[in-house]
Amino acid sequence: MRIALDAMGGDFAPANPVAAAVASLQKFSQIQELHLFGDEILIRAELAKHNATTNSRLVLHPTSQVIQMSDGAVEAIRRKKDSSLCRAVDLVKEGKADALVSAGHTGALVAATTIKLRNLPGVDRAGIGALMPTGKNVFLLIDAGGNVDSKPDHLLNYGIMGSIFYTHILKRDNPRVGLLCNGTEEGKGNDLTREAFKLLKSAPINFIGNVEGHSLFEGEVDVVVCDGFVGNIVLKSCENLAKSTFRWLKDELTANPVRLAGAWLAQGAFQSIRKKTNADEYGGALLLGVNGVCVKAHGSSSVHALINSLRVAAEAVELQVNSRIVSDVAKASASIRNASPDNATLAA
Amino acid sequence: MRIALDAMGGDFAPANPVAAAVASLQKFSQIQELHLFGDEILIRAELAKHNATTNSRLVLHPTSQVIQMSDGAVEAIRRKKDSSLCRAVDLVKEGKADALVSAGHTGALVAATTIKLRNLPGVDRAGIGALMPTGKNVFLLIDAGGNVDSKPDHLLNYGIMGSIFYTHILKRDNPRVGLLCNGTEEGKGNDLTREAFKLLKSAPINFIGNVEGHSLFEGEVDVVVCDGFVGNIVLKSCENLAKSTFRWLKDELTANPVRLAGAWLAQGAFQSIRKKTNADEYGGALLLGVNGVCVKAHGSSSVHALINSLRVAAEAVELQVNSRIVSDVAKASASIRNASPDNATLAA
Repeated sequence: MRIALDAMGGDFAPANPVAAAVASLQKFSQIQELHLFGDEILIRAELAKHNATTNSRLVLHPTSQVIQMSDGAVEAIRRKKDSSLCRAVDLVKEGKADALVSAGHTGALVAATTIKLRNLPGVDRAGIGALMPTGKNVFLLIDAGGNVDSKPDHLLNYGIMGSIFYTHILKRDNPRVGLLCNGTEEGKGNDLTREAFKLLKSAPINFIGNVEGHSLFEGEVDVVVCDGFVGNIVLKSCENLAKSTFRWLKDELTANPVRLAGAWLAQGAFQSIRKKTNADEYGGALLLGVNGVCVKAHGSSSVHALINSLRVAAEAVELQVNSRIVSDVAKASASIRNASPDNATLAA
Repeated sequence: MRIALDAMGGDFAPANPVAAAVASLQKFSQIQELHLFGDEILIRAELAKHNATTNSRLVLHPTSQVIQMSDGAVEAIRRKKDSSLCRAVDLVKEGKADALVSAGHTGALVAATTIKLRNLPGVDRAGIGALMPTGKNVFLLIDAGGNVDSKPDHLLNYGIMGSIFYTHILKRDNPRVGLLCNGTEEGKGNDLTREAFKLLKSAPINFIGNVEGHSLFEGEVDVVVCDGFVGNIVLKSCENLAKSTFRWLKDELTANPVRLAGAWLAQGAFQSIRKKTNADEYGGALLLGVNGVCVKAHGSSSVHALINSLRVAAEAVELQVNSRIVSDVAKASASIRNASPDNATLAA
């Protein structure tokens, strides 16, 4: 297996991507080639720190440009053709890499993959699937910020792709798919979700109806479908609240020596919950629906998070997630056409 | 001051509303009359428990109907004219109460107040303003679920009303108003927020631009403006995550005797953070923009939460929040018209 890594993407690039690349080659023997894209001098310096300048499984592709977070997404793709991100996508397009990982600009990654790789047959719009914790498990939030201003059939795509991801990557049959909404009754929601509800109801997935914010972390739903604007805000708000709660707790626990002693005795509990609520543990989020395996890692990814992202990419390739999507989306379209001729256009 | 209380609203009605009514009369001397609406027998039984059957400041209004959570909002208002919620709104409409508090059906409350009381002059749409914690303070999320499918000028209304609330109720001059978005740059967002951005930028408020989910709990913004669909989901997701985190932590802390001892020593820290992240502490959320002071309390409100809701209602009356909204909305419309003739229609 061959994976392309954007070594200039993320807040701690190229140090973290390079460190993750070196570690991943030791951990994952199925990765035969790991292609690093970015500034040659900087990357070589990082490789030297890990004594990995001569690793034959690492292929260095020098690039001259970097997409900045302040760049416009589509504009960046057009103007920065020799950026690490674009060149990594190109390698997948040329069939010389099986998957791509980047912690860079989300919008640019979505734009580059959508423009260069195109969507999978039957998929109208790609969505980012991000994992979030529940008591004993995780749920997949899709779309966690790939696209905004979705149409009902985009949410249908997300429901089907999320269901496939959960079934094959997380190994749970018949995952429960819910539509994120401001109420549980069928009539609740906005114009978008009311239409999407009808489509999801007819799809050959285990659709359990609308789910509210109150249910997300209760383990009652496996795949949570929403527009990318809402998904991005939910993901980031919850990540920020988890982080802030631990910071507030730390301030309180260090307020006096008795509490500090208590915190020391109970430190295992804090570590465990901190790990559960830390986005780094879940690795990158798959951009589901593009014609190529693409993993978006968090901008502030640690080395650990990037190793997990490379693992997710490898799993998606091995488990042939994309060919399963193509097949299930076709089945769903047929099923929705049969269920209601009115929906034929939307599902076509 | 006279306040109308829907004694049948919420998961623990009439017990909690009645207990909160009795306690509030002791706490808040400015409440001269507290009007209780609901089932006469049930309410009298609760009053007896608190030895309050003869309190002359409590006025009981027997009603024969209750709006259930499964009822459609507008339908419920039409069919259940003798419900506790509708009758409480009627009292405000008749000028016999200065404010209204309900922990009942959010949609029905918004519909009843909008239909019966109408919006304040210059306000196109009312929004629920809910308080959420930051490290040292709180921020106001508006709209936290009053209405969905907002237009740009509705978000402008929310920005102005939220700014007034923060200035007068929370006593902070020049509060920072942010637009909830999936990115901070001006061009980011969906069709709705990109248009709303232009209007908010021209309004006479301290608009700091787009804010992401990552910034919510960092104390960088005082008023967070969004559509009610998004706001409802953010509010409920974050409430659920806070609650779940404490449940997970409790499970971990009770996993062995050493941790349990540590938890006992550090219990003050947990209580403090639990209090900070507990929605009950913030009382009810004002429905800002309707022509009458209306407080929506959480459906699962404790007695403590309902007492806080009655306090918020009393403060909003005393501080004349509504007349300030009318005056500031008029000023904002003029200011936006002057800033850009293109926006004249929207701001009119």
